[in-house]
Amino acid sequence: MLHAVIMAGGSGTRFWPASRKDRPKQFLALAADKPLLRMTYERLAPLIPAQRIWVVTAVDTVGLTRDLLPELPPENVLGEPEGRDTAACVGFSAQVLRQHDPEAVCVILPADHVIGDEEGFRKSLLAGVRQVSDEGGLLTFGLRPTAPEIGFGYLHLGQVVREVDGFTIHHLDRFVEKPDEAMARTYLQDGGYLWNSGLFAWRAEDLLAEIKRQLPLLSEGLSKIGKALGTPEETAVLEETYPTLQRISVDFGVMEGAEKCWTIPVDYPWSDVGSWPALREVSLADEAGVISRGRVVNVDSADSVILSEGPVVAVVGVKGLVVVATKDAVLVVPADQAQKVKSVVAELERRGWHDVL
Amino acid sequence: MLHAVIMAGGSGTRFWPASRKDRPKQFLALAADKPLLRMTYERLAPLIPAQRIWVVTAVDTVGLTRDLLPELPPENVLGEPEGRDTAACVGFSAQVLRQHDPEAVCVILPADHVIGDEEGFRKSLLAGVRQVSDEGGLLTFGLRPTAPEIGFGYLHLGQVVREVDGFTIHHLDRFVEKPDEAMARTYLQDGGYLWNSGLFAWRAEDLLAEIKRQLPLLSEGLSKIGKALGTPEETAVLEETYPTLQRISVDFGVMEGAEKCWTIPVDYPWSDVGSWPALREVSLADEAGVISRGRVVNVDSADSVILSEGPVVAVVGVKGLVVVATKDAVLVVPADQAQKVKSVVAELERRGWHDVL
Repeated sequence: MLHAVIMAGGSGTRFWPASRKDRPKQFLALAADKPLLRMTYERLAPLIPAQRIWVVTAVDTVGLTRDLLPELPPENVLGEPEGRDTAACVGFSAQVLRQHDPEAVCVILPADHVIGDEEGFRKSLLAGVRQVSDEGGLLTFGLRPTAPEIGFGYLHLGQVVREVDGFTIHHLDRFVEKPDEAMARTYLQDGGYLWNSGLFAWRAEDLLAEIKRQLPLLSEGLSKIGKALGTPEETAVLEETYPTLQRISVDFGVMEGAEKCWTIPVDYPWSDVGSWPALREVSLADEAGVISRGRVVNVDSADSVILSEGPVVAVVGVKGLVVVATKDAVLVVPADQAQKVKSVVAELERRGWHDVL
Repeated sequence: MLHAVIMAGGSGTRFWPASRKDRPKQFLALAADKPLLRMTYERLAPLIPAQRIWVVTAVDTVGLTRDLLPELPPENVLGEPEGRDTAACVGFSAQVLRQHDPEAVCVILPADHVIGDEEGFRKSLLAGVRQVSDEGGLLTFGLRPTAPEIGFGYLHLGQVVREVDGFTIHHLDRFVEKPDEAMARTYLQDGGYLWNSGLFAWRAEDLLAEIKRQLPLLSEGLSKIGKALGTPEETAVLEETYPTLQRISVDFGVMEGAEKCWTIPVDYPWSDVGSWPALREVSLADEAGVISRGRVVNVDSADSVILSEGPVVAVVGVKGLVVVATKDAVLVVPADQAQKVKSVVAELERRGWHDVL
């Protein structure tokens, strides 16, 4: 049966001061009045019943997740004792799914993306699921690039395999690391490259078989955890074993070397909302290009993102600026330097200002 | 005997969000760890005993003023039921002073200026006081300009009268309205123009006589108030009469037409701290030109003023910006547009956001 696994393990320092250690990005209402994780769930709900939707998140945010998604059986929210990259995460979910449903087929979705055409999105998922149900193997969904993005990894398309419900299944040639701008331009013109979205489909059994073949150490750890699931030792084994799992991404650790690896080009409007300025991709701006939320007063500003979770924020005559205010912290950064927000978080750590971390 | 009257009636919308209706500029610690009004008092204290230092402020801030200046007899803090410009304010103070001391000579000082050379400042006050004690008339202190400022009115020097304790007393030729930049440059080069500091000296009796001669209506109102002082009707008469007093500045309403009007050029370091960027004149910046107070994290910013009264404020890669955060409001404005902060306050009024006004 078809399951969905939402990967909600991100830490999200890029969204400080709204994101905190105990409230990472996926719990923020960045694109609408609902948190991204809630939007991700609602996007799946017409396709898959709540009993077969799973979330993997940090143990610390299991409670927050259950509160946000009360439709899910509580046991469908899986807590990772420690983040161990995506191969461990999807492997863990596959162990759990297989135990509930030996025939489980699943789609894997990041919790923190925004997707414009939900119907088209769900159709593409079904096409991918049909491919891995019919042919086995591991499948990744790739976005047709609309700009020479340097912030994403890319997928290089291989030969066409077949058409499924209006989608073209390709072999996946290879994963490409984040390019420089010249390279990104080449990829965009070439047409044979897709943005790596982090969306996958496979049978749980097939994923575990590929992990076993390519990453025997990870497989061993996952098997140990799998055997403990549902037993009185489950928590103890998880806490002991999970932090020792091999740290590697599913892309390079499992997908790229898989015996059967497919990709589907998709082209719905999509954003990974990677930083504060990315809100401009997913929110409506006023005629001056200003996105504002909360109690904001704007006098003569343009092309800016101004958000408040509480205090009145007044901006006067600024351009290209991001201002975010919470009840205890304020960030001011030009949009083109937003990646440096990580340095702020690092500095807060250094100073030991844990109340705002 | 020598008295001092501190005029502390300003509303200070230019310092929003730190200044509020119930906490105007003179109550803010803008230049040091003490409020400007407190600094003004301490600057006078070596010269004049607390019993002869008076403060005129809005009735709403009388309590705040008494708390800030516990050395003063409570009755030395005078409450204006309504701001009626400076002629009314100094006239009111002269009525009060004359009642306590028929021979009162006084210096009048704004509550919200910062002065660098306190010893030199006090010496200049004494020279001015000696002039009005010896010769009568009204005297204003003028700062020798150090820049072509367009934010101040100017004084045009008349003929030299005499030397007093190393200071040169001039006739005052005329008051000049705030100039444009070209004119300000001319004034600076000319050498015969001073910045109008709002600092005065006179005998209370002489001021009241000039008001009577030039502004009979104002004089009448002030006399009514004067007669009620110390009687059971004092408060009622003040509340009824004060709001009807003629609204005019002491400069144009009284000084300029006075029979004897003097000025003394002074040249101590001085700032009227007229706006947030003016903090650069009165505070030490770091090597990148950033002034920061409170819990501020600065990554790669320059030439900015970053203040927090509570929240952590992180600024990344900004230049020439003012950021001020209080517990319930945040202001972000380029230094060269700081005068527009008034528009913010106007907009808050329009929206009825009284909690941050």
